[in-house]
Amino acid sequence: MSVNVEPTPLPVLLDDLRTHPERAQLTLTATGELLEGVRCAVEARDHRLELDEPPFLGGTDAGPNPVEAVLAALGACQAITYRVWAAMLDIRLDGVRFETEGDIDLRGFLGLDEAIRPGLGGVRHRVVLIGPEPAERYRELARAVDRHCPVLDIVANGVPVERTVQVESF
Amino acid sequence: MSVNVEPTPLPVLLDDLRTHPERAQLTLTATGELLEGVRCAVEARDHRLELDEPPFLGGTDAGPNPVEAVLAALGACQAITYRVWAAMLDIRLDGVRFETEGDIDLRGFLGLDEAIRPGLGGVRHRVVLIGPEPAERYRELARAVDRHCPVLDIVANGVPVERTVQVESF
Repeated sequence: MSVNVEPTPLPVLLDDLRTHPERAQLTLTATGELLEGVRCAVEARDHRLELDEPPFLGGTDAGPNPVEAVLAALGACQAITYRVWAAMLDIRLDGVRFETEGDIDLRGFLGLDEAIRPGLGGVRHRVVLIGPEPAERYRELARAVDRHCPVLDIVANGVPVERTVQVESF
Repeated sequence: MSVNVEPTPLPVLLDDLRTHPERAQLTLTATGELLEGVRCAVEARDHRLELDEPPFLGGTDAGPNPVEAVLAALGACQAITYRVWAAMLDIRLDGVRFETEGDIDLRGFLGLDEAIRPGLGGVRHRVVLIGPEPAERYRELARAVDRHCPVLDIVANGVPVERTVQVESF
């Protein structure tokens, strides 16, 4: 539980990881299960998410669908990386807004056309940065963010995914 | 609002998209903004998510972090694809549980070592399928799921991400 725990200041985190690089290596985990229909309950540490599909895709719309969750994660990760790298580069940043959209053709998912990929064909991410510095400083910031944003790296470059399937028969 | 809207049965959706393939092409959107610190409010349709970082990463832990959200999305998308493709292949499936984990080295994100990628080095996804059918049928199902799962395709294969940055000075 995180109640009353203060955020670690960035210089403290950087010093700690310079001295103890092994602390930089984390394994993050999400566990979950399918409920009725296509609704899913997922947990990451003490956070709980519900993901579902809208009714026209066979769900009850109890939460965003997984592709929307990826777009949300990408938008938020970019915003967080803007905050952190603005501090690293000593650039004043008063606000970040974003809109992240992706195109999907459901015929890939549903096997109606095996030439269509099941995932997104493309993503467009628009960021509005609010602050008083010269534009060149925000361009410098955007370059640093795009080089260091974890979810942008995952979505744009891909990650090897090892899969294991176990069957519980009865 | 989705209240009292019944899930569309899969055969109806399939028939509709065969007849009207243009309805299969969707653009999904997440919009959001950075709040105080690294906390983000994100919306996808009428669903709201909060993403944040744990205190040791400078946040207030108001929600999962964006990389955890990607892992949650991957796990849930696999589970949903199991449900949908079990119906497509007429395989009885009574339950799906999953654990999805990813390894990250924060020195990439924080620029402490530019040789380390900022995103995940690898992902491991473990699925437990519960049901009475012969194991070979679930292996057949797993192959179909891995070929058609949208978020697995996104995470494993990557997607082009077009970025636009606008500055609002004052």
